[in-house]
Amino acid sequence: MKDYAETRRLALEANLLLARSGLAILTWGNASQTYREDGVFAIKPSGVPYERLTVDDLTVCSIETGEKLWGRLNPSTDTLTHAQLYRKWPEINGVCHAHPPYATAWSQASRALPALGTTHADTFDGDVPVTRRLTIEEIEDDYESATGAAIIGAFRGRDHNVTPAALARQHAPFTWGKDAIEAVERMMVLEECAKIAYFQYTLGNAVTESPRKLDEPLRRKHYERKHGANATYGQQL
Amino acid sequence: MKDYAETRRLALEANLLLARSGLAILTWGNASQTYREDGVFAIKPSGVPYERLTVDDLTVCSIETGEKLWGRLNPSTDTLTHAQLYRKWPEINGVCHAHPPYATAWSQASRALPALGTTHADTFDGDVPVTRRLTIEEIEDDYESATGAAIIGAFRGRDHNVTPAALARQHAPFTWGKDAIEAVERMMVLEECAKIAYFQYTLGNAVTESPRKLDEPLRRKHYERKHGANATYGQQL
Amino acid sequence: MKDYAETRRLALEANLLLARSGLAILTWGNASQTYREDGVFAIKPSGVPYERLTVDDLTVCSIETGEKLWGRLNPSTDTLTHAQLYRKWPEINGVCHAHPPYATAWSQASRALPALGTTHADTFDGDVPVTRRLTIEEIEDDYESATGAAIIGAFRGRDHNVTPAALARQHAPFTWGKDAIEAVERMMVLEECAKIAYFQYTLGNAVTESPRKLDEPLRRKHYERKHGANATYGQQL
Amino acid sequence: MKDYAETRRLALEANLLLARSGLAILTWGNASQTYREDGVFAIKPSGVPYERLTVDDLTVCSIETGEKLWGRLNPSTDTLTHAQLYRKWPEINGVCHAHPPYATAWSQASRALPALGTTHADTFDGDVPVTRRLTIEEIEDDYESATGAAIIGAFRGRDHNVTPAALARQHAPFTWGKDAIEAVERMMVLEECAKIAYFQYTLGNAVTESPRKLDEPLRRKHYERKHGANATYGQQL
Repeated sequence: MKDYAETRRLALEANLLLARSGLAILTWGNASQTYREDGVFAIKPSGVPYERLTVDDLTVCSIETGEKLWGRLNPSTDTLTHAQLYRKWPEINGVCHAHPPYATAWSQASRALPALGTTHADTFDGDVPVTRRLTIEEIEDDYESATGAAIIGAFRGRDHNVTPAALARQHAPFTWGKDAIEAVERMMVLEECAKIAYFQYTLGNAVTESPRKLDEPLRRKHYERKHGANATYGQQL
Repeated sequence: MKDYAETRRLALEANLLLARSGLAILTWGNASQTYREDGVFAIKPSGVPYERLTVDDLTVCSIETGEKLWGRLNPSTDTLTHAQLYRKWPEINGVCHAHPPYATAWSQASRALPALGTTHADTFDGDVPVTRRLTIEEIEDDYESATGAAIIGAFRGRDHNVTPAALARQHAPFTWGKDAIEAVERMMVLEECAKIAYFQYTLGNAVTESPRKLDEPLRRKHYERKHGANATYGQQL
Repeated sequence: MKDYAETRRLALEANLLLARSGLAILTWGNASQTYREDGVFAIKPSGVPYERLTVDDLTVCSIETGEKLWGRLNPSTDTLTHAQLYRKWPEINGVCHAHPPYATAWSQASRALPALGTTHADTFDGDVPVTRRLTIEEIEDDYESATGAAIIGAFRGRDHNVTPAALARQHAPFTWGKDAIEAVERMMVLEECAKIAYFQYTLGNAVTESPRKLDEPLRRKHYERKHGANATYGQQL
Repeated sequence: MKDYAETRRLALEANLLLARSGLAILTWGNASQTYREDGVFAIKPSGVPYERLTVDDLTVCSIETGEKLWGRLNPSTDTLTHAQLYRKWPEINGVCHAHPPYATAWSQASRALPALGTTHADTFDGDVPVTRRLTIEEIEDDYESATGAAIIGAFRGRDHNVTPAALARQHAPFTWGKDAIEAVERMMVLEECAKIAYFQYTLGNAVTESPRKLDEPLRRKHYERKHGANATYGQQL
């Protein structure tokens, strides 16, 4: 029986990058990597801290059913969401899910992340969508697959390859790409864009009440004591 | 006389995790671990920096009276709060107290931490309550026990095991669990949830005044120079 | 001639703690240590990065005049402010000045830091005052001594030993204590209190427009899949 | 043919400082260093992560045309912006561009960074300007040179040497100086000033709704248990 050691190694590396980048504390996040030839993907086991994670802890699951095919541990509780994305989007081979604070705040607020600057435009071809509300039946019957279906639904009429991220409503972000590492790197980009957009929105509210500027004599004094003709700052080396 | 070396070791490990996780600067926080068979718990000594803390600095106190039974240093000033929680809640065996900035801001604001997203729901079964105002007599007579009593009071009609945290009014958070490490991990979760909720609340205020979106030609230019047919970004390796 | 090696060593250690604690980037901050018996204090040289700072770079200055008595480098441009505080407050033996972002924002806003919680009360016996506006003559004639005088003026009718910090208006904070290390530790406390107070103030504004809470079925699903009778999260180890 | 090893080494060092200072994640930023005698500058290659960057990866380009003269990799996509600044401003020899979150939020908001405090005044002689909107033709024809021209235009009637930074509208900041290292250090200063100004602006909005202060008995209790005559905090060592 195949053990998919290389696929598990790629998935491990991506999960460690996720933790190292500060996007996931404790056990909060998971990345997966496909091996399309056999219709499988390797994913983080459920509830195992990143610092103890080894390549033999990774689990291998079927893209078709989500069932575990290899591994002694339980796969991530989000496994069926990953499987759903791999089934419907055959050209992606890596998926990442995490709860980084800024992107999660936008998700919890049920607001799409708007394209406000070039930093966003460098990676995402338009707003990052937020998913629709799930029905009670979806939540109770097969919550994780329904989450995947809602992500796919958010791209009706749009290309998910040029905007490789979605915010699950009241929940947290998902990203994807050509492999697990790219999916994690896009999570890093998404969190940075969500952070900058948060700063811009909250700053925007301050527009009508600008703080008093620095008094001119004090401003001049500070510039001059460092850079003026009689500057006293620093060393004459 | 028993020295409770293993119980002290567990408490030490939890206190070091608290410092390493960035939730406590200087000497601002403490974790404790019970040894129920003998009715005792090990707790951080008062005012000792984490980087100098050794297993022999930990103190062992009585759950019944809070009095020190073992150790050459004074126990944490919050010892009687820990003792109170252990007395009234026999199934918990670890308690943590700290002043991490986001959870402390909610505490100071005297506001319960609302359940706004799945990140919160993964650990806390509902809002994290804020304690009532203490009376002047409580503050002057036995402040630390009264703090414990107010925490217990905040769970009247609720199960403290499914929402293992409380915000002490105008003060800072407490968490608990099956051992000291779990109590500290729940402090990490609480701070992360308090941070995300803070971002969501302050972002919510910005809703009526959305910033201008990125101009379309500039948005397109940035996406295309990285990903378009004539992309110039990166290397053709 | 005395070289004050031990006093310089204490001042060096405090300056390195200041940099290590993340409160000062580049060359933005300075700590000093007195040797009262000889009426002198050791202070960081001007414009030297912390990572290159050695004990022989420290300069020794007169408390009475602020003039340099020992050392080949120029002392900090803020030397006369330190000297002024040491002259008027004979019981302090360490001073620290830095530009950490939260305390500096309160200083720039010309607002005293209010006592909003116990974290503040643990170190400061009341609000941390902001200094008065300096006159143009003060700024142009002897700016650094005037800054010291304004700090002292902010404690008219108050005890500077129980609230060992002040915010220089439109500028940045100063702290002091029994030695240079204590002054730096109080800067760490001040920045943390300024951060928590900032979170509380900006959160306070959000009070009237609370975000929608997490939908109940989704909240329940997340709690149950981790902690319910049929939980799927984690490993049965 | 000259290989400009020393110029490339200086540019490499500046790019590594940029990454180490936390101002650029992934591949998001670039610094360059001129060798004026030969009319060239060394700049980071496009899309190469900092941790893999070696001195032989750096590329050398013509100040006059922006064309690559040395190196096997493609230069940064922002190369023509750097070249434009070096052509028009002959006294600068280092340029830096990055997307640090606070300065980028001000850029995206199309707002100049106001001089609000002495921290700003120590480095920038007045507000840091934001560039004008580019025309569609500029964006489509020669976007990077036009970005440089807009930066230069923002200094009409002002001295770019005393305020060595600009915010490119809806985009991100640029800084410059006597060499690449100074340009990067000014990016560090700019980000810190943008952060403090952001805190001050958002705090300013909170002015009308001050939070309730800490109750007096609780405030007194906390101060006294640490510092009062009968203090119980800490150790009597």
